[in-house]
Amino acid sequence: MKRLRVALLGCGNVGAALVDLLDEQRDAIVARTGIDITVERIAVRSTARQRPVAVHPSVFTTDPLAAVEDPDTDLVVEVIGGIEPARSLVTRAIELGKPVVTANKELLANHGAELFAAADAAGVDLLFEAAVAGGIPLVRPLRESLVGEPIRRIVGIVNGTTNYVLTKMSESGADYAEALAEAQRLGYAERDPTADVEGFDAGAKAAIIATIAFGAVVVAGDVYHEGISAVTAHDIETARHLGHVIKAIAVVERTDDPAVTGPDEPPEVAVRVHPAMIPATHPLASVRDSFNAVFIEGDAVGELMLYGRGAGGRPTASAVLGDLIDAAVNVHNGGPGRIGRLARARIRPIDDLSCPYYLSLDVADRPGVLARVADVLGRHGVSIRSMEQHGIGDDARLVFITHRARERDVQDTLAALRELDAVHAVGTLMRVVGSDEDRG
Amino acid sequence: MKRLRVALLGCGNVGAALVDLLDEQRDAIVARTGIDITVERIAVRSTARQRPVAVHPSVFTTDPLAAVEDPDTDLVVEVIGGIEPARSLVTRAIELGKPVVTANKELLANHGAELFAAADAAGVDLLFEAAVAGGIPLVRPLRESLVGEPIRRIVGIVNGTTNYVLTKMSESGADYAEALAEAQRLGYAERDPTADVEGFDAGAKAAIIATIAFGAVVVAGDVYHEGISAVTAHDIETARHLGHVIKAIAVVERTDDPAVTGPDEPPEVAVRVHPAMIPATHPLASVRDSFNAVFIEGDAVGELMLYGRGAGGRPTASAVLGDLIDAAVNVHNGGPGRIGRLARARIRPIDDLSCPYYLSLDVADRPGVLARVADVLGRHGVSIRSMEQHGIGDDARLVFITHRARERDVQDTLAALRELDAVHAVGTLMRVVGSDEDRG
Repeated sequence: MKRLRVALLGCGNVGAALVDLLDEQRDAIVARTGIDITVERIAVRSTARQRPVAVHPSVFTTDPLAAVEDPDTDLVVEVIGGIEPARSLVTRAIELGKPVVTANKELLANHGAELFAAADAAGVDLLFEAAVAGGIPLVRPLRESLVGEPIRRIVGIVNGTTNYVLTKMSESGADYAEALAEAQRLGYAERDPTADVEGFDAGAKAAIIATIAFGAVVVAGDVYHEGISAVTAHDIETARHLGHVIKAIAVVERTDDPAVTGPDEPPEVAVRVHPAMIPATHPLASVRDSFNAVFIEGDAVGELMLYGRGAGGRPTASAVLGDLIDAAVNVHNGGPGRIGRLARARIRPIDDLSCPYYLSLDVADRPGVLARVADVLGRHGVSIRSMEQHGIGDDARLVFITHRARERDVQDTLAALRELDAVHAVGTLMRVVGSDEDRG
Repeated sequence: MKRLRVALLGCGNVGAALVDLLDEQRDAIVARTGIDITVERIAVRSTARQRPVAVHPSVFTTDPLAAVEDPDTDLVVEVIGGIEPARSLVTRAIELGKPVVTANKELLANHGAELFAAADAAGVDLLFEAAVAGGIPLVRPLRESLVGEPIRRIVGIVNGTTNYVLTKMSESGADYAEALAEAQRLGYAERDPTADVEGFDAGAKAAIIATIAFGAVVVAGDVYHEGISAVTAHDIETARHLGHVIKAIAVVERTDDPAVTGPDEPPEVAVRVHPAMIPATHPLASVRDSFNAVFIEGDAVGELMLYGRGAGGRPTASAVLGDLIDAAVNVHNGGPGRIGRLARARIRPIDDLSCPYYLSLDVADRPGVLARVADVLGRHGVSIRSMEQHGIGDDARLVFITHRARERDVQDTLAALRELDAVHAVGTLMRVVGSDEDRG
């Protein structure tokens, strides 16, 4: 029987679940692949801590570099997270010709290009299904099933915390602070929720998704961000009234025409993370609680959605295990599936994007105000698709949905509206994604 | 540059779309894989018919066997459909050591085992992503991403015609005949809709899904079938009232305990196709119109859903192209991913399954009737979870949702109820799938 000896770097939720899964599935994996995969080394920060994994204590080490360099290590699984020491350890493994499986989104979103190039040069696998959407298979479908498919756009709900908070607000009428507090109580949100609610976590994932989908490097710093902390219960109620739900989404899209851009020229892409209104009939609208989903718009395949658990020990470990088996088979059969050297994508700035917008304004409730507001929109080339007016105390609230408009024009419109005496407050501005007008 | 020369058998919607896609994507495929894939032969029944594909007329032939045997053919794509001549042609290609990509569900659902074994013996790829769920990547995720994942159950909406008909009934209040007529007018249903509405199409797909998911052969004849023609507008209205939707689903599940069944013993599985009530909050409930989706319940990964276009020329051709590129890379790099020889699964009969049930009865509206009905259910071990009663003319309609019950006991209950004078009609019996009780 063939063997594959693994050094596991990190033993948190995902690492411990991986050890369990391998233990449960060992016979089945041997039956399917003929390869016996064993964890020979587990590198941890401290061996003093008790860990819920059924391995001999001698397997633990506090020296991850020695575990990587050990001649008895055939493959490295990195689930430490963060940039260093993960970056140095993964680089060293690749130099030594050892395949690497990682679940580390920060590492790939910031240093993916250099690591892909190093893996290509060394002729080894660098696999990372678990880094993007936890247990949802996304990297492999994009790289294999859809390798011949021109992808136009991918819209993802890729952060479970923000989806949980917005689902609670939507279904129980809770406000943002209440919903976040409940998410923290249930363990869906960290005590410091910044990385989730401000969109940094989703942004790192969006950078990796764009890199794979369009075959050109996008890094975390390229991603336009907006968090969900400004979303109000009123916005959610208005969205429902208009047949929409509010979701925190990541959008990666190709903005040039592939027929015009030469095959050697890098594609132009836009990558952004923000709350958006989505039609209630759109498949993403039904993604509830802490679930994730990725909606792919392809030229030939049409609309495709992949839905599941984007985080959690066992779902993420399941994705790591899929990669691990893949790499193990490649070690014994040759032919790793490498990404190779990628060019840097050209990034289209947010100002140049266009989509329909939702806009709410609190204005003085007197004749002529609507005409003045409409005039400002018109002068900036922002065309109104629908409008509603509600009384709120002495004021009136105007709610607009626009036709497709340019971000820069919409921002200029807001600046001009703030100058009007009759406009008491410019409320929420939100992009509308997935409507007929947005898709067309 | 490496070349791969394809013989395409069949040139209907899928074949023509594949030729187009290959033409559009040729440069991109060369850039990604270094392989130039060209269609050298297209076998059709008649060369007289004008076809909307941009190839030289000399590419067409009416001799598919000669196209397969041509030494200039490196790989065969079969999109003829049906059992013969597809079976003989695919078998011959495999004998000659030529990889095969097929979209033929009838062929695989009936003769998959012999073809997988032949491909294994010859050491060539037999790929069939497009045969199961059109453009939705399902076979590859199951075989690769989830290779280390113990799958418990898969529930799929795998027939676009029935999903379209039920969506129309649900959203417009149309009855079955009206909705079917509209589906036929729009081209979503054949003039003879039997294969779709009676569940044969979904049954063939379910057999293939079960074979891949559980690694043991299930054939079309193993699948329990019920069609959707008995579903009434009243059932749909009652389902909505109870917070459910009615969907035509395929269910494949493992019914033995993998920890007890030895690794060399074939698994026991149940495979069935029928309409079912699904909670409105379940992700499958939001799969509308002619879309398909496959909901996977795994031990580690949890819940996973893959959604998209299950049919249509370009979506299906997109899946064929993914396989084609995969096989092309394998031809040049070695190492086809074969399924090998599979044992025959043990099939659990429908009588031995259990789930919650929905049952409607029209009964005489007089005292004591409910007690007698409840007594019949109780004597058969069928426990009531909820009950509603509505007046309809002189009768009363009783609607029950049961706790989890055995199919055999429920069928015996129905027989006993039909004996009661007070029961005027036994209406719809429908399984409830995806509720908390069903999942637990």
